[in-house]
Amino acid sequence: MYVAVMGYGTVGSGVVEVLSKNHDSIVKRSLQDSLDLKYILDKRVFKGDPNEDKFTTEFDDILNDDSVKIVVETMGGLHPAFEFTSALLKAGKSVVTSNKELVAAKGYELLELAKEHNTNFLFEASVGGGIPIIRPISQCLAANEIDEIAGILNGTTNFILTMMIEKNMAFDDALRLAQENGFAERDPSADIEGHDACRKICILASLCFGKHVYPESVHTEGITGITLEDVAYVHDFGAVIKLLGCAKRMENDKISAFVEPAIVKNGSQLASTSDVFNAILVRGNAIGDVVFYGKGAGKLPTASAVVADVIDCAKHTERRKALGWEQSEDNYIVDYRTIAAPFYVRAAVENKEAAQEAIASTMGEVQYLHRDNAPETELAFVVGTQTEEVLSKALESIEGLKVLSTLRVTDY
Amino acid sequence: MYVAVMGYGTVGSGVVEVLSKNHDSIVKRSLQDSLDLKYILDKRVFKGDPNEDKFTTEFDDILNDDSVKIVVETMGGLHPAFEFTSALLKAGKSVVTSNKELVAAKGYELLELAKEHNTNFLFEASVGGGIPIIRPISQCLAANEIDEIAGILNGTTNFILTMMIEKNMAFDDALRLAQENGFAERDPSADIEGHDACRKICILASLCFGKHVYPESVHTEGITGITLEDVAYVHDFGAVIKLLGCAKRMENDKISAFVEPAIVKNGSQLASTSDVFNAILVRGNAIGDVVFYGKGAGKLPTASAVVADVIDCAKHTERRKALGWEQSEDNYIVDYRTIAAPFYVRAAVENKEAAQEAIASTMGEVQYLHRDNAPETELAFVVGTQTEEVLSKALESIEGLKVLSTLRVTDY
Repeated sequence: MYVAVMGYGTVGSGVVEVLSKNHDSIVKRSLQDSLDLKYILDKRVFKGDPNEDKFTTEFDDILNDDSVKIVVETMGGLHPAFEFTSALLKAGKSVVTSNKELVAAKGYELLELAKEHNTNFLFEASVGGGIPIIRPISQCLAANEIDEIAGILNGTTNFILTMMIEKNMAFDDALRLAQENGFAERDPSADIEGHDACRKICILASLCFGKHVYPESVHTEGITGITLEDVAYVHDFGAVIKLLGCAKRMENDKISAFVEPAIVKNGSQLASTSDVFNAILVRGNAIGDVVFYGKGAGKLPTASAVVADVIDCAKHTERRKALGWEQSEDNYIVDYRTIAAPFYVRAAVENKEAAQEAIASTMGEVQYLHRDNAPETELAFVVGTQTEEVLSKALESIEGLKVLSTLRVTDY
Repeated sequence: MYVAVMGYGTVGSGVVEVLSKNHDSIVKRSLQDSLDLKYILDKRVFKGDPNEDKFTTEFDDILNDDSVKIVVETMGGLHPAFEFTSALLKAGKSVVTSNKELVAAKGYELLELAKEHNTNFLFEASVGGGIPIIRPISQCLAANEIDEIAGILNGTTNFILTMMIEKNMAFDDALRLAQENGFAERDPSADIEGHDACRKICILASLCFGKHVYPESVHTEGITGITLEDVAYVHDFGAVIKLLGCAKRMENDKISAFVEPAIVKNGSQLASTSDVFNAILVRGNAIGDVVFYGKGAGKLPTASAVVADVIDCAKHTERRKALGWEQSEDNYIVDYRTIAAPFYVRAAVENKEAAQEAIASTMGEVQYLHRDNAPETELAFVVGTQTEEVLSKALESIEGLKVLSTLRVTDY
């Protein structure tokens, strides 16, 4: 049985490396007599590469070769990844992808195509890099109704926040360090604005709750507004700020889903997830909380997740793996501003005492937080469980108070 | 398709509860038209139980009923669990167990039987309660060579150690609290002496490294020797004491495997695993470190793992799941005393200065640790990487020094 790889970038070349490095055990585990690489599709030329003879620039070489049963898509982007994947599935080939953009935007369509043509479309590597998460959710947790899922889904932003928390580094310096270390792109917006995390929570929520969640329906807020002042106050609260993707089952067959920096209490597994690591918490009605932790990116971790899917495809050539979800309605996601939680608030005030009196009379008891060298005109506090809608109105009603930041306090 | 449950204790009744509670989604996920409970085998009488009509005291009712395709074994103990399971597998029925004693002692034999009779023997719930670990190891990590595995595998001892660390509670008091909370049995020896953790690391090591690891070949040390003095010194080292089960691939196709209290640096996922939670770290050659965290015991978490296996059996009635390992040779496990690591040592000395001089001359530089109110005759320090063999000899050679405790310092 033959495999082709489309896109010889970081992940694609990692897949080729893992396929070769662990070749014998992979063949054994795939229950095949052989499992070998036949083509690498890439426009670029890789002179001297050990697999130089396998390169092609023609997609049709792969599409029309009946001996190729499994194709790895690691090109990234929506086009032509979507067209290629569709054509391969229609030809009855299995496709394995690490492309979160593709799955988040087109997962429903591609899974339906795979079903129609009795083949597999697998995407373990699209979330959490090498962390096994798609398969545990779809199989191991099969006996649970999943109520909620939350995760640190982006290593770049987690590295930046870790530097801010542990080294008191300003956001811009932490971003520069991430770029120097190769953890952030030259254009870091997809990471720091939360779009990457958004795609991943869309995939997880689609899988957990059974209907496709589209990125454009998910409120997404990045970490560019987080300051060292917030980090210090939250430290006083015994907690840390993490960029979380969250989704939760709500009433009337709807769900909530959003990406935003939020507060996680120290001592939890998410709080102790530092640097470029990712962690995903799944809350099931029978299992309670389960957390999956590991490297969320990187050549070999991600490649190993891709190759695990390749093995699974090889084992399921005749009978496809049951995996899929339904189309969702327009109003499937409820407005994030209606999801109640305790909130952290930092505000500038004209008169501290007057502001505190007004806060007490409009919001009841709040927990004030401390940081060293705070100006006399700054207040930070945590208010009890309420919706962002109600909170905003209450804060707006207080004269001389200007909100500098608000963050949701989670129970993860 | 029908299911039977043998043993209506905590886990068995939990399985019945989950099968009923999540019935519709379970049937859907198992790709069957129906999946219903037909028998509960138990000698006791459960008057008024909603499933009262399904109880039987005759194993043969289950064995001889062709409509029962999947049997859940939650009786515990080796006998008659082993005889029943063997008979069921020989009859071509799938068996799902949560019985770690059975899998650790008889896993190889039962997996061979399952293979011979083209049926399934699954045991996700035998390790880590509800945490998905057996399936991720055998499938998701298929593309990795696993180099090492280490885990907090016993919730009772982790609760006791957490109370000692966080509340400064003495071992006996913490054990009593665990018993009062239902986290420890009246006879707690299987937990506190490490035997439960031993069975679990045997199962994990068998799966990761491909040959059966027998409990009697695994050095096992419990937590009864851990004192608050050790806890305090280790705190000064920026670490905590955890009862770990560890296994590692060694040279010449051998492995190491042992259970002992060991030191884990703060900030790691294992260090932040508190109370009755479990966590299992898997170190793969492509994936790096991955950690699985969750409730390691409890009625519903464990039951949900059992039911996930039941669903998997239902999906694999015709073609069995590939799962198994080989028989091992007698000298498969290397002596734990030859596994090098840094070590923590606490000792009573006659003369502190003389002892420190002798330590410097025999062991080179060590890191001395501090605790409040330590007697003048006590020393605690961490020595560099060496085997326990070498360390013991060096310590024995120092006059007037009596070792009170030694603990391995891990890099997990």
